Amino acid sequence: MRVGIIGVTGYTGNELLRLLLAHPEVKVTYVTSHSFAGQSLDQVHPHFRGITDLKLSSFSLDEAAEKADLFFSALPHGQSMDIVSQLYTAGLKVVDLSADFRLTEENLYREWYGREHTASHLLEKAVYGLPELYRKEIKEAVLVANPGCYPTSVILGLAPLAARKLLEPGTLVVDSKSGTSGAGKVPNQGLHFPECAENFRAYKVARHQHTPEMEQELGKLFGQEFNFTFVPHLVPMIRGILSTMYLKIKDNLSYEEIVNLYREFYDGEKFVRLLPPSMFPETRNVYGSNYCDVALQWDQRTGRLIVLSAIDNLVKGAAGQAIQNMNLMLGLPEEAGLEAVPLRP
Amino acid sequence: MRVGIIGVTGYTGNELLRLLLAHPEVKVTYVTSHSFAGQSLDQVHPHFRGITDLKLSSFSLDEAAEKADLFFSALPHGQSMDIVSQLYTAGLKVVDLSADFRLTEENLYREWYGREHTASHLLEKAVYGLPELYRKEIKEAVLVANPGCYPTSVILGLAPLAARKLLEPGTLVVDSKSGTSGAGKVPNQGLHFPECAENFRAYKVARHQHTPEMEQELGKLFGQEFNFTFVPHLVPMIRGILSTMYLKIKDNLSYEEIVNLYREFYDGEKFVRLLPPSMFPETRNVYGSNYCDVALQWDQRTGRLIVLSAIDNLVKGAAGQAIQNMNLMLGLPEEAGLEAVPLRP
Amino acid sequence: MRVGIIGVTGYTGNELLRLLLAHPEVKVTYVTSHSFAGQSLDQVHPHFRGITDLKLSSFSLDEAAEKADLFFSALPHGQSMDIVSQLYTAGLKVVDLSADFRLTEENLYREWYGREHTASHLLEKAVYGLPELYRKEIKEAVLVANPGCYPTSVILGLAPLAARKLLEPGTLVVDSKSGTSGAGKVPNQGLHFPECAENFRAYKVARHQHTPEMEQELGKLFGQEFNFTFVPHLVPMIRGILSTMYLKIKDNLSYEEIVNLYREFYDGEKFVRLLPPSMFPETRNVYGSNYCDVALQWDQRTGRLIVLSAIDNLVKGAAGQAIQNMNLMLGLPEEAGLEAVPLRP
Amino acid sequence: MRVGIIGVTGYTGNELLRLLLAHPEVKVTYVTSHSFAGQSLDQVHPHFRGITDLKLSSFSLDEAAEKADLFFSALPHGQSMDIVSQLYTAGLKVVDLSADFRLTEENLYREWYGREHTASHLLEKAVYGLPELYRKEIKEAVLVANPGCYPTSVILGLAPLAARKLLEPGTLVVDSKSGTSGAGKVPNQGLHFPECAENFRAYKVARHQHTPEMEQELGKLFGQEFNFTFVPHLVPMIRGILSTMYLKIKDNLSYEEIVNLYREFYDGEKFVRLLPPSMFPETRNVYGSNYCDVALQWDQRTGRLIVLSAIDNLVKGAAGQAIQNMNLMLGLPEEAGLEAVPLRP
Repeated sequence: MRVGIIGVTGYTGNELLRLLLAHPEVKVTYVTSHSFAGQSLDQVHPHFRGITDLKLSSFSLDEAAEKADLFFSALPHGQSMDIVSQLYTAGLKVVDLSADFRLTEENLYREWYGREHTASHLLEKAVYGLPELYRKEIKEAVLVANPGCYPTSVILGLAPLAARKLLEPGTLVVDSKSGTSGAGKVPNQGLHFPECAENFRAYKVARHQHTPEMEQELGKLFGQEFNFTFVPHLVPMIRGILSTMYLKIKDNLSYEEIVNLYREFYDGEKFVRLLPPSMFPETRNVYGSNYCDVALQWDQRTGRLIVLSAIDNLVKGAAGQAIQNMNLMLGLPEEAGLEAVPLRP
Repeated sequence: MRVGIIGVTGYTGNELLRLLLAHPEVKVTYVTSHSFAGQSLDQVHPHFRGITDLKLSSFSLDEAAEKADLFFSALPHGQSMDIVSQLYTAGLKVVDLSADFRLTEENLYREWYGREHTASHLLEKAVYGLPELYRKEIKEAVLVANPGCYPTSVILGLAPLAARKLLEPGTLVVDSKSGTSGAGKVPNQGLHFPECAENFRAYKVARHQHTPEMEQELGKLFGQEFNFTFVPHLVPMIRGILSTMYLKIKDNLSYEEIVNLYREFYDGEKFVRLLPPSMFPETRNVYGSNYCDVALQWDQRTGRLIVLSAIDNLVKGAAGQAIQNMNLMLGLPEEAGLEAVPLRP
Repeated sequence: MRVGIIGVTGYTGNELLRLLLAHPEVKVTYVTSHSFAGQSLDQVHPHFRGITDLKLSSFSLDEAAEKADLFFSALPHGQSMDIVSQLYTAGLKVVDLSADFRLTEENLYREWYGREHTASHLLEKAVYGLPELYRKEIKEAVLVANPGCYPTSVILGLAPLAARKLLEPGTLVVDSKSGTSGAGKVPNQGLHFPECAENFRAYKVARHQHTPEMEQELGKLFGQEFNFTFVPHLVPMIRGILSTMYLKIKDNLSYEEIVNLYREFYDGEKFVRLLPPSMFPETRNVYGSNYCDVALQWDQRTGRLIVLSAIDNLVKGAAGQAIQNMNLMLGLPEEAGLEAVPLRP
Repeated sequence: MRVGIIGVTGYTGNELLRLLLAHPEVKVTYVTSHSFAGQSLDQVHPHFRGITDLKLSSFSLDEAAEKADLFFSALPHGQSMDIVSQLYTAGLKVVDLSADFRLTEENLYREWYGREHTASHLLEKAVYGLPELYRKEIKEAVLVANPGCYPTSVILGLAPLAARKLLEPGTLVVDSKSGTSGAGKVPNQGLHFPECAENFRAYKVARHQHTPEMEQELGKLFGQEFNFTFVPHLVPMIRGILSTMYLKIKDNLSYEEIVNLYREFYDGEKFVRLLPPSMFPETRNVYGSNYCDVALQWDQRTGRLIVLSAIDNLVKGAAGQAIQNMNLMLGLPEEAGLEAVPLRP
């Protein structure tokens, strides 16, 4: 199987290539870069030196169609939709890692991303690529919208409760913390090392663009729309997202019943690991891997349930999940190329 | 004025000394260390080399009483109460930085700190040392219980709402994030650099011992006891606490009215800085200083108010606040020795 | 092929397991831990949860001999020699990651490691496990002494010059910088996060125990004993060693001639990557991988050659190199299980 | 005394202001910024909120001359010389923190900084602002060229040996390691957090522009020009420089004699701290302070002396030293405003 990566020199494109070079069943045959076209990959990313002699192309539909069978678009949102649309129209399979095809409603895209959608006819074709929820649809999909990093951590943390209609929507508060690689490769003041190291801060407080994506997916599971409060924070580390979710439960379930519900819901899911009582997720325990670690804690004093989840934002939160989707789309074993042990320490 | 520091070699003791050596009105004349008695300070802490020739003593009440007029106890909780009790009985003024005299109710101490209180007769004598709330009482106090680091960040964030009885107690969720120095100087696995760097995690989820302290103080302001959910997290940085507080408001106040309420409440308070709209606290903006930065954000979609506060856990969260208390107890200008500009970058 | 890891819960044991679980040709069948015997591995190291159900044993020669065919000893130096000796005597193949069998001369061990060698009869049996130099001998070896992390970075940096007798021994200065994981898993004051983050320091200045190992190996290549100055430093990061080596050259070689000499010397070596002019090694470019990046720079003003090399101390500097040795000992492809792309960012 | 800071929003300008606001004898009355003129300082640097209400001006000689008596130029090299020249011509005292007036020879400036000097007539007027060497000249100076950060650490480490003509010039190798703030505030790829954290690298190997400055000053002390090898490295931390210097000694001096020579040379110097045997500098021990810690270690096996020094690059390596110079120029106590205890942890 031959695959292509559109936009390979950003952080998600780079991570896709890292993982795909170790994939037993597919071969990367086409990689593009707008800024570095014509160069070899190891000139731009010296850590690939001696490992691959891939050359960076400018995107061309003809060359793409000739060279590969499935494509990952790792372009920024807003830039991705055009090329994805071309690939789709040419009948080529695509996993889009941008946000361009995640929201079903065009007006939400306009509102939260501040631009017009130029390929809105594809919004209903796109399958939301969270395999733990939509495995069957992904297998049939031509266009998969790969979930955002925060949404992956939050939806996997809350899906069992939403699907069983157990959460009290009005009580939900999600406080997420992310490493810096989620913000991408382009330098800016806030990610300049002397500003960002030894520092901790919230950003886009209650207005992060991943909010409607989480509400859409949790609402679908819950069977009813609802809003919740979401605040992201920036951690002085490179990789990892930890989400702490606070909510109340509708029925009078015991802690054990909730744990069992999670166990059943994720039974057989290789990449979701429920932690035993008194053990909490650490981002380092999933570093470089496709796992999502989930823990539950009851706050008896207030009757609140606390759900914690951790992922590597570049793997389960982006490139790893995209490969999991690719595996499903190509009929490969779902975990192929994704079995690396987390890197710790 | 002569002051002593009991337990100077831990992180809060060390920070007290750093700040007091620059204090224009007091002189540190007595410092103790159980482990390093007999050595000079710069043998244990080489960064003091050439700055002070203080020698470390074993604590003795007689020597203490002879050498200084006011004492800081920077001993761990459980160890502090005995020495504080001796000093108090001898008529000496004390600021206790441990948790031993913060909780008014003895049984809460037993429950959350897992030990008996051996000086419980002093619990009612101790004044809670948050100058923004108890300035008058602190001026008269002999024994001041210096607030915990998390409580300082949370109480300053919520005091205006609690005092005006505006918060809906059942809605309050507090998600705090702390640097590692709050855990003290003794090495352990979780703070071993290779375990802690590039890692983020929650700990003591919904069971941190600072919870009853915050509930006690907010309840006093609110005029009624209430519980809330508190989850602390560990950030891979040395200093700083950022607390993100989620709640609903009782009356139908506008954002401007809430901002005005905060402005009035903290009018004239040198160390509480309200940030303008769209600016959020960063721990680095208070690094090494006694400031507490506070911001308010309205989440219109859910009707929730989000309050964010940042402090340096070793300064406003410990040693700086202790000196602020000392200044009040000794009739000195409250900000004496505490006017350093935050260190950034 | 079945392999065992003696001392799997330390950092090198843990890294061996991470890499071996992805190895296509061998199976880890036996893992021991003195401190955690009886527990399952994921209780001690939760990042292995869901990946392996290996149980931790206490070491027993009989069980070891029954369960596996080749062993890695990842015990601390001083503790390793006894168990290695037992395994050797039982005719079992061993790669020893401790320092116990690296020095040929027993008295050097006594002098630099401060203890008696209790298995000195094996010193002459052990092959120094640097495949780029001793590939042939390693293939035949029963006992391989896996090189130290600093020595790997330094010997690979200087081997071409030493082997061609081009370096002026008296001019050699080696300044190395290491991440913190090289110091192992046991917490101590110097590696306590608040002491080690935002800090840089030298340690064991001119007296690090890896010095005689480097001198032995470079002396063998050079055909003559010589001493040089070695100073290690501690970098506030988890993984990586960068060595900067300063020396003068005997003959009047041009920069191009030296580069060519390196190119020839490492021709066909998969894991040594020579960088082009004006590109210098970064530890992050070899992160999590078995590569050693090497660069050369001429300082024309002083006539000095500067050689820079970077490795991941836990991979090429320990576990990865050990697996490379195992591959040779077992007749497997040398790069089997070691082809992971460096993790960056 | 009224002082002005030209270019206050960069890292050295910001640090000057931090320190000067705590200075007992001077008042900052004029601050400029090209990019942010017209704004208040706390809009650009929120950590100054509530501390100062200084407004940012565009530089104008008339306004400058009216508002202050002495100026710091914290502009980048190349931009500084023009404004410094204007101030000088107007008879105003200046401490220039750029590199523009450090090199006596114009052609060296052209060669290493890659531009023409447009105020070369002032090169001979400028005094090199290292108070430990040129205290007398600085007191009389109108224009002081504040030393570079690397040069400060290296010259203070070697001055006693150079002045006594004891070092063997041909043997000197200097390996320096710096935190990231030395590279300034403008974001770039190499200082983007995800590229720079968990990474270590050399840069400008044997071609850093501070090299001729160090050679000029050490040559003056030594009484004869000489070259040496200098390699700087980037440490994933914010502040601090540690230099490791390797050399041989001319006469047959014992370690004690060398130590005594250093002790005499720096007798009475408040800001140079000689460490006792077996103690080595750590950058954190001088964090935020004006100290330079120096240690000596003999490598008996090779007959080489190793000198280690540590400074805070923004304080003794820039703003602190500039204030030390100002104190001398204004007849104030040399240590005024510079007595802060290093911030640790």
